[in-house]
Amino acid sequence: MTSILALDFGGTKLAAATVNLGSRQWLRYERRLSPMNADANTDLEIMRSLIHSLLQDTKPTAIGVSFGGPVDATTGTVRLSHHVPGWENIHLKDLLEKEFGVPTYVDNDANIAALGEHRFGAGQGSDDLFYITISTGVGGGWILNGQPWRGFGGMAGEIGHVVVDPAGPVCLCGKRGCVERLASGPYMAQNAREVLVNEPKIGKILRDLVGDNLELLTGQLISEAAAMGDDFAQEILRKSAWALGVGIGNVANLVNPQLFILGGSVTKAGNRWWEILRHMARETALPEVDFAIVPAALGDDAPLWGAVALAQSAFE
Amino acid sequence: MTSILALDFGGTKLAAATVNLGSRQWLRYERRLSPMNADANTDLEIMRSLIHSLLQDTKPTAIGVSFGGPVDATTGTVRLSHHVPGWENIHLKDLLEKEFGVPTYVDNDANIAALGEHRFGAGQGSDDLFYITISTGVGGGWILNGQPWRGFGGMAGEIGHVVVDPAGPVCLCGKRGCVERLASGPYMAQNAREVLVNEPKIGKILRDLVGDNLELLTGQLISEAAAMGDDFAQEILRKSAWALGVGIGNVANLVNPQLFILGGSVTKAGNRWWEILRHMARETALPEVDFAIVPAALGDDAPLWGAVALAQSAFE
Repeated sequence: MTSILALDFGGTKLAAATVNLGSRQWLRYERRLSPMNADANTDLEIMRSLIHSLLQDTKPTAIGVSFGGPVDATTGTVRLSHHVPGWENIHLKDLLEKEFGVPTYVDNDANIAALGEHRFGAGQGSDDLFYITISTGVGGGWILNGQPWRGFGGMAGEIGHVVVDPAGPVCLCGKRGCVERLASGPYMAQNAREVLVNEPKIGKILRDLVGDNLELLTGQLISEAAAMGDDFAQEILRKSAWALGVGIGNVANLVNPQLFILGGSVTKAGNRWWEILRHMARETALPEVDFAIVPAALGDDAPLWGAVALAQSAFE
Repeated sequence: MTSILALDFGGTKLAAATVNLGSRQWLRYERRLSPMNADANTDLEIMRSLIHSLLQDTKPTAIGVSFGGPVDATTGTVRLSHHVPGWENIHLKDLLEKEFGVPTYVDNDANIAALGEHRFGAGQGSDDLFYITISTGVGGGWILNGQPWRGFGGMAGEIGHVVVDPAGPVCLCGKRGCVERLASGPYMAQNAREVLVNEPKIGKILRDLVGDNLELLTGQLISEAAAMGDDFAQEILRKSAWALGVGIGNVANLVNPQLFILGGSVTKAGNRWWEILRHMARETALPEVDFAIVPAALGDDAPLWGAVALAQSAFE
């Protein structure tokens, strides 16, 4: 039986699964949180133990790997991880091919999630799509003409660092008003915190949710407070949806994909977030530029399913 | 002998040329200005007379057509012209194929200029590039994987209507701070005029160039005044270069092409314009995103050479 081993090296979790070629159901599935103070070696050790538990004495026909950070997909080399030290220039493809003796394919999580949604999720039937994850960070992956588009240097899809408000707050990347700076969960929490520290009278519902400890603020709690009617939390969410909507409208004008697929925790922020986002994207795109914006279908498993699709390329 | 007929329906001029397959030199070349009050029929009549003068009793093997406005390249149908009335839904491919009896290919001027620069100009050897024309308007065309990328609905490349400053002036499209609104020649002239009307003490050199008749201001005169040391003209040019530079940096982050090729009259604005543009593009793109920005090589003939390349697809 031809089976595929799919691996997901996320920033905070590790997952591995096996599937028979052509099946849409996992044969076996294991996941583990990355430990505090993880490095590349501890992540690789944990992944090895997941793999051995999954495979036992069997051997997969190919391995697909999603990595949470920049990857040279041509050579299967990890450039670095923004979350876990020690991943600089690790030849992950070579390492796994030597260890398991089967063809291995590696790509970054946004590209691979795009591929997963295209083959098995919300993007089935659409050959020109942009997948965006909005969570701790904001990243994207392209499918054009039915194939991953990684860019000339493998860096395409960085919608998180597209500037939408040059007068906005400063992002970690040094620029002002990047999409990620306004739309991601941690930055929404930071924006809320900075205002609430100085304005004791607003955001009552949000404050109650964290027992007045503003250090506990998260993007998710802002969504919850907004759903409970907190005006201030709604305003923070509005800015997130505004930034992402303008970014998407700009992308539509530039590349004109058929479909935008949105995944990641911030997409659970509620209907109002989606409404503002869709409105701003529509306003920003030219009237002749058509597109749809839909939620991702595969949830946390998008990278694993994308890894399956990538490994399937061995048989195509 | 296998020859190609290339046609260019610009907004204000019409051009036609013939070339032998594989040659880089025009066999014959004719151009004419569009008359005042032109419509689709008068443009077609003028083009017919140019063609008959070029061809005499010969017959080309294929026809390539550049049209200055949105085109459905699949069917060769012009959607409309923003400059000349009567072009709505004209089946230009069908019309020319019936009239001349040879395969005909039609695309819009930005896509086709991108193709021309790719095959015969500054983009030779680069399979992933974005061509931008900055002139009366601002538009763009993609080459990805060595092929034109027109988008799912044929609308890709509209960098002119990417928003770079949501607090900027209102564009004809209804949005604020589009690249075209800040970077194009006529909008630079408009921006300058609005300030000079209210501020009699600035822009002395620029005023002298138009004999104090602000209606005569053009993008080109702003460039000339800037080159002569007019601070105000330099500031207007700086904003143009800033907007285009931010737009290019955003495109680099999103799509990661190898090369940006810039053509159109505003690119003659001088070294300072190019320096600011390159600086802002580099600042806006992530450090890992590499690209070059170069001037177009084919000048006004880029659409005609692109039409040749498009017609050559008949033989490939």
